[in-house]
Amino acid sequence: MIVDQAVYRDGKRLQCGDLSDELDQLHKEKAGFLWIGLKDPTLEEFDLVKDELDLHPLAVEDAVTGDQRPKVERYPNGNLFVVMKTLSYVEETSDVETGEVMLFIGERFAVTVRRGEPAPLAPVRAALEHAPELLAHGPVAVLYSVMDAVVDNYMRIDDELADDLDRIERDVFSADRTTNVQEIYSLKREVLETRRAALPLVEPLMRMLKAGLLPKEALPFFRDINDHLLRVVDHIETYDRLLTDVLNAHLAQVSVQQNGDMRKISAWVAVAAFPTMVAGIYGMNFSGMPELTASFDIGGSEYYYGYFVVLAFIVVGCVFIYRAFKKSGWL
Amino acid sequence: MIVDQAVYRDGKRLQCGDLSDELDQLHKEKAGFLWIGLKDPTLEEFDLVKDELDLHPLAVEDAVTGDQRPKVERYPNGNLFVVMKTLSYVEETSDVETGEVMLFIGERFAVTVRRGEPAPLAPVRAALEHAPELLAHGPVAVLYSVMDAVVDNYMRIDDELADDLDRIERDVFSADRTTNVQEIYSLKREVLETRRAALPLVEPLMRMLKAGLLPKEALPFFRDINDHLLRVVDHIETYDRLLTDVLNAHLAQVSVQQNGDMRKISAWVAVAAFPTMVAGIYGMNFSGMPELTASFDIGGSEYYYGYFVVLAFIVVGCVFIYRAFKKSGWL
Amino acid sequence: MIVDQAVYRDGKRLQCGDLSDELDQLHKEKAGFLWIGLKDPTLEEFDLVKDELDLHPLAVEDAVTGDQRPKVERYPNGNLFVVMKTLSYVEETSDVETGEVMLFIGERFAVTVRRGEPAPLAPVRAALEHAPELLAHGPVAVLYSVMDAVVDNYMRIDDELADDLDRIERDVFSADRTTNVQEIYSLKREVLETRRAALPLVEPLMRMLKAGLLPKEALPFFRDINDHLLRVVDHIETYDRLLTDVLNAHLAQVSVQQNGDMRKISAWVAVAAFPTMVAGIYGMNFSGMPELTASFDIGGSEYYYGYFVVLAFIVVGCVFIYRAFKKSGWL
Amino acid sequence: MIVDQAVYRDGKRLQCGDLSDELDQLHKEKAGFLWIGLKDPTLEEFDLVKDELDLHPLAVEDAVTGDQRPKVERYPNGNLFVVMKTLSYVEETSDVETGEVMLFIGERFAVTVRRGEPAPLAPVRAALEHAPELLAHGPVAVLYSVMDAVVDNYMRIDDELADDLDRIERDVFSADRTTNVQEIYSLKREVLETRRAALPLVEPLMRMLKAGLLPKEALPFFRDINDHLLRVVDHIETYDRLLTDVLNAHLAQVSVQQNGDMRKISAWVAVAAFPTMVAGIYGMNFSGMPELTASFDIGGSEYYYGYFVVLAFIVVGCVFIYRAFKKSGWL
Amino acid sequence: MIVDQAVYRDGKRLQCGDLSDELDQLHKEKAGFLWIGLKDPTLEEFDLVKDELDLHPLAVEDAVTGDQRPKVERYPNGNLFVVMKTLSYVEETSDVETGEVMLFIGERFAVTVRRGEPAPLAPVRAALEHAPELLAHGPVAVLYSVMDAVVDNYMRIDDELADDLDRIERDVFSADRTTNVQEIYSLKREVLETRRAALPLVEPLMRMLKAGLLPKEALPFFRDINDHLLRVVDHIETYDRLLTDVLNAHLAQVSVQQNGDMRKISAWVAVAAFPTMVAGIYGMNFSGMPELTASFDIGGSEYYYGYFVVLAFIVVGCVFIYRAFKKSGWL
Ligand SMILES: [Mg+2]
Ligand SMILES: [Mg+2]
Ligand SMILES: [Mg+2]
Ligand SMILES: [Mg+2]
Ligand SMILES: [Mg+2]
Ligand SMILES: [Mg+2]
Ligand SMILES: [Mg+2]
Ligand SMILES: [Mg+2]
Ligand SMILES: [Mg+2]
Ligand SMILES: [Mg+2]
Ligand SMILES: [Mg+2]
Ligand SMILES: [Mg+2]
Ligand SMILES: [Mg+2]
Ligand SMILES: [Mg+2]
Ligand SMILES: [Mg+2]
Ligand SMILES: [Mg+2]
Ligand SMILES: [Mg+2]
Ligand SMILES: [Mg+2]
Ligand SMILES: [Mg+2]
Ligand SMILES: [Mg+2]
Ligand SMILES: [Mg+2]
Ligand SMILES: [Mg+2]
Ligand SMILES: [Mg+2]
Ligand SMILES: [Mg+2]
Ligand SMILES: [Mg+2]
Ligand SMILES: [Mg+2]
Ligand SMILES: [Mg+2]
Ligand SMILES: [Mg+2]
Ligand SMILES: [Mg+2]
Ligand SMILES: [Mg+2]
Ligand SMILES: [Mg+2]
Repeated sequence: MIVDQAVYRDGKRLQCGDLSDELDQLHKEKAGFLWIGLKDPTLEEFDLVKDELDLHPLAVEDAVTGDQRPKVERYPNGNLFVVMKTLSYVEETSDVETGEVMLFIGERFAVTVRRGEPAPLAPVRAALEHAPELLAHGPVAVLYSVMDAVVDNYMRIDDELADDLDRIERDVFSADRTTNVQEIYSLKREVLETRRAALPLVEPLMRMLKAGLLPKEALPFFRDINDHLLRVVDHIETYDRLLTDVLNAHLAQVSVQQNGDMRKISAWVAVAAFPTMVAGIYGMNFSGMPELTASFDIGGSEYYYGYFVVLAFIVVGCVFIYRAFKKSGWL
Repeated sequence: MIVDQAVYRDGKRLQCGDLSDELDQLHKEKAGFLWIGLKDPTLEEFDLVKDELDLHPLAVEDAVTGDQRPKVERYPNGNLFVVMKTLSYVEETSDVETGEVMLFIGERFAVTVRRGEPAPLAPVRAALEHAPELLAHGPVAVLYSVMDAVVDNYMRIDDELADDLDRIERDVFSADRTTNVQEIYSLKREVLETRRAALPLVEPLMRMLKAGLLPKEALPFFRDINDHLLRVVDHIETYDRLLTDVLNAHLAQVSVQQNGDMRKISAWVAVAAFPTMVAGIYGMNFSGMPELTASFDIGGSEYYYGYFVVLAFIVVGCVFIYRAFKKSGWL
Repeated sequence: MIVDQAVYRDGKRLQCGDLSDELDQLHKEKAGFLWIGLKDPTLEEFDLVKDELDLHPLAVEDAVTGDQRPKVERYPNGNLFVVMKTLSYVEETSDVETGEVMLFIGERFAVTVRRGEPAPLAPVRAALEHAPELLAHGPVAVLYSVMDAVVDNYMRIDDELADDLDRIERDVFSADRTTNVQEIYSLKREVLETRRAALPLVEPLMRMLKAGLLPKEALPFFRDINDHLLRVVDHIETYDRLLTDVLNAHLAQVSVQQNGDMRKISAWVAVAAFPTMVAGIYGMNFSGMPELTASFDIGGSEYYYGYFVVLAFIVVGCVFIYRAFKKSGWL
Repeated sequence: MIVDQAVYRDGKRLQCGDLSDELDQLHKEKAGFLWIGLKDPTLEEFDLVKDELDLHPLAVEDAVTGDQRPKVERYPNGNLFVVMKTLSYVEETSDVETGEVMLFIGERFAVTVRRGEPAPLAPVRAALEHAPELLAHGPVAVLYSVMDAVVDNYMRIDDELADDLDRIERDVFSADRTTNVQEIYSLKREVLETRRAALPLVEPLMRMLKAGLLPKEALPFFRDINDHLLRVVDHIETYDRLLTDVLNAHLAQVSVQQNGDMRKISAWVAVAAFPTMVAGIYGMNFSGMPELTASFDIGGSEYYYGYFVVLAFIVVGCVFIYRAFKKSGWL
Repeated sequence: MIVDQAVYRDGKRLQCGDLSDELDQLHKEKAGFLWIGLKDPTLEEFDLVKDELDLHPLAVEDAVTGDQRPKVERYPNGNLFVVMKTLSYVEETSDVETGEVMLFIGERFAVTVRRGEPAPLAPVRAALEHAPELLAHGPVAVLYSVMDAVVDNYMRIDDELADDLDRIERDVFSADRTTNVQEIYSLKREVLETRRAALPLVEPLMRMLKAGLLPKEALPFFRDINDHLLRVVDHIETYDRLLTDVLNAHLAQVSVQQNGDMRKISAWVAVAAFPTMVAGIYGMNFSGMPELTASFDIGGSEYYYGYFVVLAFIVVGCVFIYRAFKKSGWL
């Protein structure tokens, strides 16, 4: 689907007429360029432009198929083909979603292809159209603006992931221990998804910077993108390590707590076992158990006190056992 | 076993006559090529062709022995020898199986060797025979087509492994916890098997791309294969990491659940211990336990109520203990 | 915010007049330099200097935005732009905090930018003003002094982290086991924060050393910084590994202790179960249990001894069980 | 100890006379070579040959001391010195044992040194003596044959380790769980021992291939050795990873089983606690417990049925509890 | 502190007179050298030599401060500065201790600096003084001898660590399981300390070998040191991996044992629960429990046998339960 299409001359946007005529004109003038914006294009839609712009069939195949690895490819005719992963973050589910942006950059044209929802390119085009001094640099300005927007977006995702990690850390180390192991795992998954988008871009971007494919004065700008990309990759690696550690810390905490619970339970079992044991003994049916009939003889009537003494003994024993466990830290 | 054998001239398939004559003819014409397809060949079968085609004895040994590491070798006579692992996926057992494809590529011939079941080469030959413009590039077209087919197949395996990982994740984090540790381990094993097929191919393919062994216009096509290969390797590494994490998450969940179960069990033990303890006390045989004979005197006849009071006390105590545990989250 | 501003001639500090005039003068004299110190500068504050000093807009953007990756950038006009992370350590919370220092180094000027609290630059300036022979080397002396101060500070943080690790180790392996899993995790986090500050500086510093950007006689001094940086990075990696091991050791200890506790508990349960079982048997209401009425007939009156024999039996049994567990190491 | 010693001319073995004369003769003829085979040689034994053959004292020291890292060293006089680890596998104990083979390769001589039992060199010499066309290539043929034999042996060890891993996997995931943690660890140890033999050889072999030390037509043969070596290293790395995973899987399984056992035990405890509790209640000595004396009056004589009803109640209760646990999966 | 000081001419040790005169003389003669040995030197002690020998102030600072990273630095005046970590092993505590050795190597002098106790240099000097042919090579002989001694010492430490690891392995897998988690962790710490001494030396030593700083005939000797260093590093990496595995194996064993203990305990609880339950039932106070009064009437007197039958029933039940658990492997 062609989303937008225009010719840019002297930093101004113009209506695009017949593709072939416009290109001839641009080549003759040696200035200005054509910018076509596509979304989820089909092979048929590409047929309209690929011959005029001399796009390589394999690049077109990649753009139509999608799900490519980030890369920068230069074809024999001098055209650049750039694939980048775009990311978006769904706040409710903390899910990172991956889309794709591809660019065909020729001397007098730029074709931008968007696959999936994340990172619409319209704001990039709008911003560029308000910066004629940037537009004047031709298609390389489109390449810079799109790459910058994509990587700036990685930095936003990076912030979101840092937030999620902070939240998980707070959960794991909070007193009420509400941690959900699945949450830790899910964040790890999203972190790896982000990593898979950002990391493979480092090497081709590095190579592009060194290969002399870009005008010299543009280099600091692309290096700036590279800095931000490397910063994201650094962070992502840290999150990955920390998530492994958080899971292990969680496991250690569960074990520590289990041990504590087991001690607490055992201490209470001991407290409860004492009365049962004593009661068992005095439930025996022996003849001649003196405690059973221990009595005072007050004014002729007998007062049996054995039961009460044993009840008191049981209570005192329980309190003693309780205190001993309290002191040893089991309770 | 010779599976197929033909001469290709001007993009058309022709019957192959005497090997030696055909080769002489092809070299004279400086066009067309011979394509021999073998399956699990023996040394004897190779003897028929190896001298005519000047195949290196070590390459022949590798082709006959099998179980080689993926590689691209160039012999002094200019011949290329390429070894690739082929993979297939058995849906029922989620098992990845490994076979091999080897190619001998000379100026006027291609010999393809298949070892094991996965990835039959017949469809590749059939597809090529329907693409005469590709065939016109000679043996390098065979090399490209076979490599493309092998790597495209890696991508299918990649998808299957991703499916299996998804299923395991769902199992691990589902409420009924049906996870089988063996399944996690088995998938890890298959992932490593896939990795062992794909990863060692990266470096020789890279080197082949840079060594100038291929015609210039073919480079983007082989780089396309390389892209796909790298994408598979990226994914495989992610699966490997995630499987480690899934196992750890499973372990953490089992520990959490064990703690929960232990608390639940202990709480019920406490609930059951109360009646036993009380009953024990009133089972003692002391003389003068006033509760035992507590009674109303209604209309001359005595109504003993002690038993019923204690029964009620037991029930109330159990309910109280139950509620306390409920509140603390142990039940 | 401009924190300080001065011109240095012949190793002496002079008042700074109009920026433009001073620079012209310095360039004419081919000696001396201007040093501007900024803190958390805004774009507006930069506007005053950036044109005079020909600072690159991307470098200015980085200095204003902050939160950049450590790097050394050289712009086409020959200016250097250096970003470093500064660290400080909060003794009470064992927290490492990150700030930033950026430097713009031109032929006749140095601009130092501080972001965040850590590592004030004033002492560095003061020290340099007392070392005229160093100042005589111009802006590169500022670069050296600031980098040296930043990296020397890393070494102090390194020492603090080593102290914290020692304390945690002592806790984990002490008898009273007061370890807090959260402490281990927190230290890991701070270690990774330190790593993220120090590690990315290694590569650009290395590159700067090799790129011939520095005067030859200055090289050993910057290599000295590099040595110290590498030493910190070595240590940090060790701490990271050891913290993983400490957590695992802690986990193993908890498991060992849990097993020990379980054995101890079970042994006591066994000791307590014996009297209960024996008492239960003699609490049965059978007619004709000879033990219940076993008696001596001394002088006509019957002495029932069964009860006392069984009491003794119970005590002896408990002691025996206790000893058996003691011997087997469960108690 | 000199194990064997011979001169090879025109692919034929000849008696070796005086060392010095033979070498002079061989150098004059510019063909043939001397092959000395040593086993655990002492410095004194080397004294006999080291001056004649101009062996470097450090190489001799290594050969006498043993326990060296695999390496390929070239000394200023052009001699090569190669150290390789040899491995053998003890079937009964699944133990890998390490020995050493060292080679001194000069223009007209080869000295092979064997340390430890594994990998006797006699079969290599025997095989070479039956392949005169190989022997004709001189000392480099000895180098090739020994390296090939050593690396071929690595492949056999590789197979054995794969077998052992398979067995351990079967044990871990079999129903009767006979796994011995020590076995897993021991295999890991042997895998690392194999790795330490094979991995350090990769880099010097690679360097030897690139350094032009070998005749051109020999390169494919040494590359073949390299292929096999890399294949072993690939496998070893996989085993190492899998063994870590097997141990973790085993740990997870033990935890899962422990949880299952705990539930089963608890369920039986609950089943047993019911009769005890009920019996306790009816063992209380209250006056006026109507159940105790519940009776039918049939034909004047009283039939007490309370006991039988309670017995039935206990049985029914136990069955009910049993069924409830069965349903919930705890039994 | 100056430990020793001498001039070496023609391989003989001579008294050292005035430093400045001696050096002039040595430079004039173009032979012999001065060797100064220092221990924990202060800046003041260095002041006496640093100008005469033209030592770089940063190198002097490093030598005085200590705690440097291993390195090889070459200063513009051609002097070499080498820092190495020395290690010693305390048998009683299995502790590795780290010291330092630094060398300043000029054309006609060697300054050796020792920091901390490990690795005294006196034996090295003594050995060199008995090897005049080595001394004749000048300061490079000192460099070689010291490096060789330091790295040879690493190998001794390596052996000690291997011993400690063996002991821990034996402990972990012995029947009585006396393992102390702290011991495993401590060894890991010492292994990492050794690693931190040895590993950073690899790269500068490699670089020194390639940079042409050494005389050609000395290269094999320094490569020999390098071999031994790499061997130590290989081993250390293996110990590090194995210690992680040992800890995990220990953890797994504790879990396995805990499960076994739990089963054993539960089985005994079941055995003990049976008599308690049966006794409870016959302790109920129902009227009309026929078992309680079951009797033979022999010769007019009643023999109550119920009690004995139930006693027998209890014993038989316990034996049956015991056997069932024995069979299932829980006991
Ligand atoms: Mg969120
Ligand atoms: Mg996602
Ligand atoms: Mg940006
Ligand atoms: Mg920007
Ligand atoms: Mg958010
Ligand atoms: Mg920036
Ligand atoms: Mg499947
Ligand atoms: Mg498989
Ligand atoms: Mg493909
Ligand atoms: Mg394709
Ligand atoms: Mg499927
Ligand atoms: Mg593609
Ligand atoms: Mg602190
Ligand atoms: Mg912090
Ligand atoms: Mg410093
Ligand atoms: Mg300093
Ligand atoms: Mg402190
Ligand atoms: Mg220093
Ligand atoms: Mg556990
Ligand atoms: Mg075996
Ligand atoms: Mg072994
Ligand atoms: Mg072989
Ligand atoms: Mg072979
Ligand atoms: Mg076997
Ligand atoms: Mg082979
Ligand atoms: Mg020791
Ligand atoms: Mg130590
Ligand atoms: Mg040595
Ligand atoms: Mg030596
Ligand atoms: Mg020892
Ligand atoms: Mg040696």
